Amino acid sequence: MTTMTSIGAGRPRLGARKRPGATARDEILDAAAELFTTQGFTSTSTRAIADAVGIRQASLYHHFGTKDDILAALLVGTVDAPLAHARELRGLTEDAVLRLYTLAWFDAGQLAHSRWNLGALYFLPELANERFEPFRAQRTDLMAFYTEFSRAAVVAIGALDPADTATAALPFRLVESVINTRSDFGEPAGRTAVTIADAAIRALGWTGPPGEFEGPARALLNSTDR
Amino acid sequence: MTTMTSIGAGRPRLGARKRPGATARDEILDAAAELFTTQGFTSTSTRAIADAVGIRQASLYHHFGTKDDILAALLVGTVDAPLAHARELRGLTEDAVLRLYTLAWFDAGQLAHSRWNLGALYFLPELANERFEPFRAQRTDLMAFYTEFSRAAVVAIGALDPADTATAALPFRLVESVINTRSDFGEPAGRTAVTIADAAIRALGWTGPPGEFEGPARALLNSTDR
Repeated sequence: MTTMTSIGAGRPRLGARKRPGATARDEILDAAAELFTTQGFTSTSTRAIADAVGIRQASLYHHFGTKDDILAALLVGTVDAPLAHARELRGLTEDAVLRLYTLAWFDAGQLAHSRWNLGALYFLPELANERFEPFRAQRTDLMAFYTEFSRAAVVAIGALDPADTATAALPFRLVESVINTRSDFGEPAGRTAVTIADAAIRALGWTGPPGEFEGPARALLNSTDR
Repeated sequence: MTTMTSIGAGRPRLGARKRPGATARDEILDAAAELFTTQGFTSTSTRAIADAVGIRQASLYHHFGTKDDILAALLVGTVDAPLAHARELRGLTEDAVLRLYTLAWFDAGQLAHSRWNLGALYFLPELANERFEPFRAQRTDLMAFYTEFSRAAVVAIGALDPADTATAALPFRLVESVINTRSDFGEPAGRTAVTIADAAIRALGWTGPPGEFEGPARALLNSTDR
């Protein structure tokens, strides 16, 4: 079906939408995510992104000033949902192990099943540029939540040393390993989020049966969704 | 000190070596590793690599036909030592948990303390090209060793389901998470290899005290070094 589609600040466009997303901005982000993760960031031009959306390059610039701006928006999109959940979970008086499990389970799930494997872009040398400082700060915040929740879980479990920072860093790294798995095999089938969240608490000394926290984590997340 | 340095198939060079390595080939690999990991693969030209070594571009081509060839050599260098150890460990009748621990401990250690964080290059979209099939095959072999050793360890520990492939994949992912940590913070201090190897067996259901296998792993590795 061919329709007239408004693309926000740009001119109307004749043609079907090629990309998922409610707005032209979303379509640009989706096209850029595909090209950055499959062709590489350096190799992708804003012209190629505009072509993949089916808009003019000038229209793209109504939404994003530079290619770096597009990358920054995509990167922030990988951490804002887990950060929001972490902030809510911190305020709760739930069991420390369940709190960490819930964050890891949600975050691993979104990394596993997002449309593109955007975490692979974390390894771009370009991210050292000042332009990406806001993203880096948000990711550091998320990492700090993981460390805080992990330390509390280590205390609650009582098997390992809560002062061991390398151990407290393991759950965050296990969750981000979903990015590595996707880079090798594409979107994972099955129960990745549960496997990863189970391993995250096991790495902190927990020894219960697999999947024990999945139901409680789901319930907790539903209860905090606004 | 200024010395006359032979650069293999190229012409002799007047000047101090700028790079570690016994041969010009090693110097080229070191310079390329630095530039690929800090400036990006796409952004690095063979000219820039030659400049960083202090040789002519023509001399570089005596050693490597293309930039892809340099990348392929660097990538293979990240897996050949752990693969050699995995082959030796498979032949041993040691405890299955110790065998997995030893592989993870060695591999995490070399990823943590190699001169450049070459694992960050695993995420390059270029690696899908046929040129890198030999590297991908070797990494797949290494992954298969991890999976085999992990399954045997799960059976030996007796707490989790040996048929659960996602669980058996965790040790390999934990070891490669060293790459992610280095990408964020540089070369890790402290006892990364022990923390990772401990977490690898804990993820498989092991519940002993931290560091228990470090001494035996070191002894086992020394006994297999030829």
